[in-house]
Amino acid sequence: MTFDRFFSSAALVMRESAIRRMGALGARIPDLISFAPGYPDPVLFPWDTLRVAAADLLSGADPAALQYGATRGYRPLIEALGTLLEARGIRSTFEERIVTSGSQQGLDLVARLLIDPGDVILVELPTYTGAISAFNNVRASLVGVPQEADGIDIDALDRTFERLRAEGRRVRFLYLVPNFQNPTGLLIGLDRRRRLLEWADRQDVVIVEDDPYGDLYFPDSAGPADTRPLKADDTSGRVIYLSSSSKTLAPGLRTAWVVAPEAVVQKLDLVKQAADICTGGLDQRLVHRAVTAGVLVTEGDRLRAHYQRKRTVMERALAREIGDLVTWPAPRGGFFLWVTLPAGLDADAVLTRALQASVSFVTGTAFFVDGSGQDTLRLSFSQPADDRIDEGIARLGRAIREEIDAQLAGGRSSADSGTSVPRG
Amino acid sequence: MTFDRFFSSAALVMRESAIRRMGALGARIPDLISFAPGYPDPVLFPWDTLRVAAADLLSGADPAALQYGATRGYRPLIEALGTLLEARGIRSTFEERIVTSGSQQGLDLVARLLIDPGDVILVELPTYTGAISAFNNVRASLVGVPQEADGIDIDALDRTFERLRAEGRRVRFLYLVPNFQNPTGLLIGLDRRRRLLEWADRQDVVIVEDDPYGDLYFPDSAGPADTRPLKADDTSGRVIYLSSSSKTLAPGLRTAWVVAPEAVVQKLDLVKQAADICTGGLDQRLVHRAVTAGVLVTEGDRLRAHYQRKRTVMERALAREIGDLVTWPAPRGGFFLWVTLPAGLDADAVLTRALQASVSFVTGTAFFVDGSGQDTLRLSFSQPADDRIDEGIARLGRAIREEIDAQLAGGRSSADSGTSVPRG
Repeated sequence: MTFDRFFSSAALVMRESAIRRMGALGARIPDLISFAPGYPDPVLFPWDTLRVAAADLLSGADPAALQYGATRGYRPLIEALGTLLEARGIRSTFEERIVTSGSQQGLDLVARLLIDPGDVILVELPTYTGAISAFNNVRASLVGVPQEADGIDIDALDRTFERLRAEGRRVRFLYLVPNFQNPTGLLIGLDRRRRLLEWADRQDVVIVEDDPYGDLYFPDSAGPADTRPLKADDTSGRVIYLSSSSKTLAPGLRTAWVVAPEAVVQKLDLVKQAADICTGGLDQRLVHRAVTAGVLVTEGDRLRAHYQRKRTVMERALAREIGDLVTWPAPRGGFFLWVTLPAGLDADAVLTRALQASVSFVTGTAFFVDGSGQDTLRLSFSQPADDRIDEGIARLGRAIREEIDAQLAGGRSSADSGTSVPRG
Repeated sequence: MTFDRFFSSAALVMRESAIRRMGALGARIPDLISFAPGYPDPVLFPWDTLRVAAADLLSGADPAALQYGATRGYRPLIEALGTLLEARGIRSTFEERIVTSGSQQGLDLVARLLIDPGDVILVELPTYTGAISAFNNVRASLVGVPQEADGIDIDALDRTFERLRAEGRRVRFLYLVPNFQNPTGLLIGLDRRRRLLEWADRQDVVIVEDDPYGDLYFPDSAGPADTRPLKADDTSGRVIYLSSSSKTLAPGLRTAWVVAPEAVVQKLDLVKQAADICTGGLDQRLVHRAVTAGVLVTEGDRLRAHYQRKRTVMERALAREIGDLVTWPAPRGGFFLWVTLPAGLDADAVLTRALQASVSFVTGTAFFVDGSGQDTLRLSFSQPADDRIDEGIARLGRAIREEIDAQLAGGRSSADSGTSVPRG
């Protein structure tokens, strides 16, 4: 029998994540060099710390280590997060923190808590695909706002908001990734952060701040002061802040956290009860051991230097191979280079050629809620080894040149989609 | 600022799980003996197997062990589940299986996939609170069907269905816990299972079959043949089957699975992508190691004997302390005794006295979607040690007698709520 008639309206509009789809595609290509997923580099995972901690936790001395736990999270971890957050400028009470099964769950729970079908969510153009999916799955209406070199365009944001209000639309929140945004790598400037908070207060809008990369600045171009979360200066309690250990410890331990006003955390607790009862007890204890052992502090410099070097490797390869053809904003942290192709070149067509050459990336359109971005693509430099980055960019360069040649030969051309993310 | 105006309609109707609330309450009571949560006994967790496996998995030899993984699950685990399911009579392809972060996530994802606000879900009276919450959170309308000694009343089910159809309501699925149901401990008879499948085919209804306890039959009163899942005989592909390692290995490893038609699994994969990206990689590998090491087979008899003995301890204590006052259906497996109080006695009032005497349980109303069950309560014998069961039931007996005396003295009485779960 066919199941179609049993699916909910939400199920009928669910779309596969472009990043996940790339993963499935890539698994069938031999010798693939993938710049698609934003995976941290496993050589940086704190294997020794975790192995020693696991041996202790699995001794059986503490039966709770493998039992169901509190929905809000493992209490010592919630407490330790307080210190971690304070180092980033965020002061919070125990009751304002909750552990989630990865930040993706945090986004999903926040979406379910705040969005009714048809509500408007404001997002950056482009923005993180996982957030797009989570918001789409509760049938939100996503409206994009362009970015400038130091972040979201506040004038455009305000104009969009006023237009929506005039149309009688209800804007539920503004979703931001202020630090080394996925996919652009952009960093919102400190002055702009202050103005965003003022704007949110004036227009009475909630801000959902997603901050997985804040600790991963590149020392040659940014410092901890540059990544101060909006939440740190949220005097009116309208910012819901998400962060995670996925990029700084290991994503296989599905552990992240949300900091929000107590009333929001209480509701998050309720919706999480029915979503997965609790986050894994062993995972939470392993993260707690790593955090209290100071791994994030002692290893932080190594992580930052490591990803900075990979960025340099990829930027040099890009400059060498296709520096005459493509542009990208220089990221000051994070995992991504956001590349704009020559005008008229379509990233989908380039991807087809790239996959034939055993190299992959994510096409930019996946990150745009307005259908634009055809001439953009996201490259992750975080996971591949240095020599693989060099080889992969060489392959990509050949794919791009082939596509240009094919267009010249065939006279094909597609209109420049005019994304407003700065090039260069 | 107050956040209320920002919450979604769904958030406004979310309710705390009575079981979770009992957990929070109990944490503040000294020397509490809790019969509230359906926790497995940690002495049965395979600590040694898991410790050895963790040491190997965290050696760093396989970087994927702590990396993001496929949304559908760790491939070797999905493969191993095939064998496990086949031992229960369920034949399935790889594409018909998906790993979830506990069965609670499975219920939540199924709910989001199949339910539009206002859709009717048919459930047993009483039924599992976690399912009630998951279905409520997508704004389903829950309609209960009474149970008889060997399971849901099919005549009542059909009458209810026909009535709803006549009213123009859309019934999305029937939710069942056929084996040692939470909370009643009831087992649906084999003939009734066959008739349920026939009924579902005739009325074209989907069945969601939740089976966490199927392996935990009591050898003195049931065998593996008695727990054959409906899914094993689902020739038309309308059963969505959920099971879990939470009760047989350890719930701290948030690993469960759904078996369903491929079209459903594809949609589950989509909605899970945005719900938590993937289930924990370490957890899945630990479960895979335990399963392929044969822990479920070699330890199965020990688990069954262990819980059977605890059931006996609790039944004897109940008979000794309050056998003249309460009744319960004899469970043939699982974790629960479902107790009916003397007519007119209210379980909430008993709970108040019980907590003063440092013993807790879950009041029956939490499991009824029709507001009934005031004179019922659920006792879990699975976790407390034998002597604690004896002591706890003695305390409960005193609380019940005190409440009876108080009612006689004060002339208070509440009407018998007339639950249709059999007593005895």
